[in-house]
Amino acid sequence: MLGKLWLIPNTLSEGPIERSIPEEVRDVASGLTHFFVESEKGARAFLKRLPLRIPIQDAEVLALDDSRAMERMLDVLRQGRDAAILSDAGLPCVADPGAQAVLQAHRIGAEVKPLVGPCSILLALMGSGLNGQSFAFCGYLPVEKIERERKIRELEQLSSRHKQTQIFMETPYRSQKLFESLLETCSDGTWLSVAANLTSADQTIGTRRVAEWKNGRVEFGKAPCIFCLSSLP
Amino acid sequence: MLGKLWLIPNTLSEGPIERSIPEEVRDVASGLTHFFVESEKGARAFLKRLPLRIPIQDAEVLALDDSRAMERMLDVLRQGRDAAILSDAGLPCVADPGAQAVLQAHRIGAEVKPLVGPCSILLALMGSGLNGQSFAFCGYLPVEKIERERKIRELEQLSSRHKQTQIFMETPYRSQKLFESLLETCSDGTWLSVAANLTSADQTIGTRRVAEWKNGRVEFGKAPCIFCLSSLP
Repeated sequence: MLGKLWLIPNTLSEGPIERSIPEEVRDVASGLTHFFVESEKGARAFLKRLPLRIPIQDAEVLALDDSRAMERMLDVLRQGRDAAILSDAGLPCVADPGAQAVLQAHRIGAEVKPLVGPCSILLALMGSGLNGQSFAFCGYLPVEKIERERKIRELEQLSSRHKQTQIFMETPYRSQKLFESLLETCSDGTWLSVAANLTSADQTIGTRRVAEWKNGRVEFGKAPCIFCLSSLP
Repeated sequence: MLGKLWLIPNTLSEGPIERSIPEEVRDVASGLTHFFVESEKGARAFLKRLPLRIPIQDAEVLALDDSRAMERMLDVLRQGRDAAILSDAGLPCVADPGAQAVLQAHRIGAEVKPLVGPCSILLALMGSGLNGQSFAFCGYLPVEKIERERKIRELEQLSSRHKQTQIFMETPYRSQKLFESLLETCSDGTWLSVAANLTSADQTIGTRRVAEWKNGRVEFGKAPCIFCLSSLP
């Protein structure tokens, strides 16, 4: 009998863990002992907030990018013990590492158990008011100006052609730059939603047409932002 | 001062609400009084599981497809009182009604507050082991055979061209038929993941290449299913 592979959500922001992690998830996570993680530091900070059933120093915490991680995880599962994948923030495997490990767990026939938790992409989409019947997430946009503007125009076309909300993100220190690039490049009628600091006390979500965003200065500072774009009328 | 518009997640399956709804979310929801909902029946079943702070018969519960709903919701917000959007299952506004109401709330300047809860689309993606760095959700596939097969081939092409996992769903009684259509239409090398009965005790998630799915009969019965498809090697 193989062990199960649990996919454990992490919080997106400071503040009480009860805000975004259901208690059954915390209960399951507390009983686990082998964690394969985005970063050891991020994982240990999360595990310290759980009532772990073993001393934290006895838990195995191994970064997914460690060359030994995949074989070790499969060994744990083959020995009939459960393993967990954990990211530094949000859902593992979604804009985050873990998918390769999940695929390997499927290959050996282990049961995969994704758990409920916060996902900035979906919170931004819900909160945007833009089309949630059809949407695409495409990660980060190119950093280089010409490439980025080309990509923004492609996203407008994809949104129009497939009636699809296009979702993308940016590292905090480049959010303002991307926002200004969007205002310069998009059609005035394009809808743009910006969700900043999701789940934190400073959370803001604004949805306007590009022409309306241009009236008045908006500063996102160093906030982590998720952007949703729609070319629908 | 305008009221806030809260977007309240609902459970995906029977069983304890603690499994998938964080306690802070239940706490916020319990204090609300004006609910704009997918169906009155589904909403009341959820509200009965909360420690609502008013008698349930005093809560306003109005279906979003009622012609009075939008104006009424905006009135509540304009009067400085909070309102909520609630679906029968999962996240409002994501493959579910609510986006138009959220957009109108943004138009009048009300604060929109999406809350954390279960999303079958994201649980399926996490659990699939397929690419979660770039993905698209496209709702339901066409029912008519020729149209459906055309769409499946288009999804394979989109997945290959944009390196994007394609996610779609089906009503329970047609899941088996769609599954068989996928096996008939897709290339043997295409990855197909099927997540059935997510968050319930009967949950299963399987990811295989189409050629492997063809070896052996799989029955999904009347299970609600989410499908993830990837043409990556």
